[in-house]
Amino acid sequence: MRDIATRYKENPLLSPKDLNASDESMIIECLLNPGVFKFKGKTWLLVRVAERTLQKEDVLSVPIYNEDGKVKILNFDPKDSKLDASDSRVINYDGVDYLTTISHLRLLCSDDGINFYENDEYPSLFGEGEYESYGIEDCRVSQIEDTYYLTYTMVSSNGVGVGLRITKDWKKFEKKGMIFSPHNKDCAIFEEKIDDKYYALHRPSSPELGGNYIWLAESFDGVHWGNHKCIAKTRKGKFDSKRLGAGAAPIKTDKGWLEIYHGATEKHRYCLGAILLDLEDPSIVIARSEEPIMEPQEAFELTGFFGEVIFTNGHLVKGDQIQMYYGAADEFVGLATFSIKQILKTLGQ
Amino acid sequence: MRDIATRYKENPLLSPKDLNASDESMIIECLLNPGVFKFKGKTWLLVRVAERTLQKEDVLSVPIYNEDGKVKILNFDPKDSKLDASDSRVINYDGVDYLTTISHLRLLCSDDGINFYENDEYPSLFGEGEYESYGIEDCRVSQIEDTYYLTYTMVSSNGVGVGLRITKDWKKFEKKGMIFSPHNKDCAIFEEKIDDKYYALHRPSSPELGGNYIWLAESFDGVHWGNHKCIAKTRKGKFDSKRLGAGAAPIKTDKGWLEIYHGATEKHRYCLGAILLDLEDPSIVIARSEEPIMEPQEAFELTGFFGEVIFTNGHLVKGDQIQMYYGAADEFVGLATFSIKQILKTLGQ
Repeated sequence: MRDIATRYKENPLLSPKDLNASDESMIIECLLNPGVFKFKGKTWLLVRVAERTLQKEDVLSVPIYNEDGKVKILNFDPKDSKLDASDSRVINYDGVDYLTTISHLRLLCSDDGINFYENDEYPSLFGEGEYESYGIEDCRVSQIEDTYYLTYTMVSSNGVGVGLRITKDWKKFEKKGMIFSPHNKDCAIFEEKIDDKYYALHRPSSPELGGNYIWLAESFDGVHWGNHKCIAKTRKGKFDSKRLGAGAAPIKTDKGWLEIYHGATEKHRYCLGAILLDLEDPSIVIARSEEPIMEPQEAFELTGFFGEVIFTNGHLVKGDQIQMYYGAADEFVGLATFSIKQILKTLGQ
Repeated sequence: MRDIATRYKENPLLSPKDLNASDESMIIECLLNPGVFKFKGKTWLLVRVAERTLQKEDVLSVPIYNEDGKVKILNFDPKDSKLDASDSRVINYDGVDYLTTISHLRLLCSDDGINFYENDEYPSLFGEGEYESYGIEDCRVSQIEDTYYLTYTMVSSNGVGVGLRITKDWKKFEKKGMIFSPHNKDCAIFEEKIDDKYYALHRPSSPELGGNYIWLAESFDGVHWGNHKCIAKTRKGKFDSKRLGAGAAPIKTDKGWLEIYHGATEKHRYCLGAILLDLEDPSIVIARSEEPIMEPQEAFELTGFFGEVIFTNGHLVKGDQIQMYYGAADEFVGLATFSIKQILKTLGQ
């Protein structure tokens, strides 16, 4: 069965070879999951770039970020008995985990939404400080009036949580620290307050009871959050049987807040679904996809750094059309469009 | 080596046989981890009472709480192929976990801090609503002026999070919902604001990077929380090598905020340690116990529902003396005292 996404015919839009590494000691391994926004009349992507360290003989090197957001290389002796390098993604030295790749957020802009280029005036964002020493990932960009709220995954040996930076000009950023404590990711702030409160979707993980579910939280200032409620759980036998998480900020429609989310199976196949939330009380779920609205089917979606993955955390809305950017196979950036009406129809609306 | 706690000579203070079950269909399995506070000149315990359902032949019964805080019994056919009852604590039916025991919080009062009795005027607290359907556990009671903040573990199929109820009279409670999303527990709110902000210790768990560490959060209203910072991690080879979590609210001393916490090993041996936090910025750790200040050694601490466990989430302070109530072996309530000066001395202060 074909899904209801219309893919851009020249996908993928971006591949690792299209960008330069952030530093001469690094190699780009993957492009992933761009945040998307409009600024100064242009379309901007905030692409997650995952890099690894150039390896030298007889040394195992992993990158971390220091306090100033600069890469620091840690070198280990592969023969050291305190080193466990059996997993290609995570090594352990003397009880402490380190990631073999590190992600930063690369800012790219475009006049047509298709051809993206770097702009020296607007630098990339890197991990800064002890909660981001292993990188920053998968940023959602929510615009409320003239202010952009960047919610992203902070990664460090402390755990994986949600960070917030705020900007108006994409040059100066106000750092608001960790807004959701570990283990948490996939956070998107609604682009409008409801009854004077900010709302956000987020994805805590539970190692015991519960699972990898989508939750909703409320805030009076966008920085301090409470009244957590679970709005969507995994469903046995469906495309979202193992984990699910919000995409970008929900889209306001006449029928409710429309959220495009990712769901994954036990075999790590990532598809997209939709969920419709009540306009006045978004903790009320009106409808949810029984089948994916988009699933991996093109070659670059099926095969790559991590195959059979479609993941989105950014889109623009133009009338009935959602112009959605997405990560494919954890390696490429693609573009697809949806009709809002058509998605709502699949939800029985 | 003896620890530095002075135990009450007639410990344990309370055993399961001392209380009646909440309902004729239930049996008390354990008493655990009391919150402690002063109210109307008396000493009060808010004891966690874990109960299981009386089992009938050919039926497996588990208890849950309904919306009104009343016990509802779910019955399963032990021969049903959808049922997995291989774990005595958690059963699974058709993909959903249920606990075999359920906890409520029993309010007991005392004139001397030793002999506790129930008072019909002040009823027990039960789980209410979908986030507490599997019970409420391990409540910390923090008093700020004339208001009591009850932070407790909410348990349901949604996961394990921290709930907040507020009261002034122990009759009417204002429910503030879940303040820390799963997986989170061991939350204690400081009993004084610092620079006009509330602070709380909490214990998120991370299934990937990170672990079971103590974190600090800030709030302007006690309900919405942010700026999460990790203040204490597990330490390889020590008494807190596998997990740790805050006890009751920290005690204000000249040297800093003194927090008594529990640390556990891989073998689930629970001891108590102390940590000293900066008075003005409690995210700064001044000192931390190298050795436990209290460890299981008495018979009722070593053997019980779950042996070798000392766990505290409640105390009163009288001058230099901490009068600490604690859960022993997940079955009994004990009393011990500490000298604040002596604890500070073990911390090099």
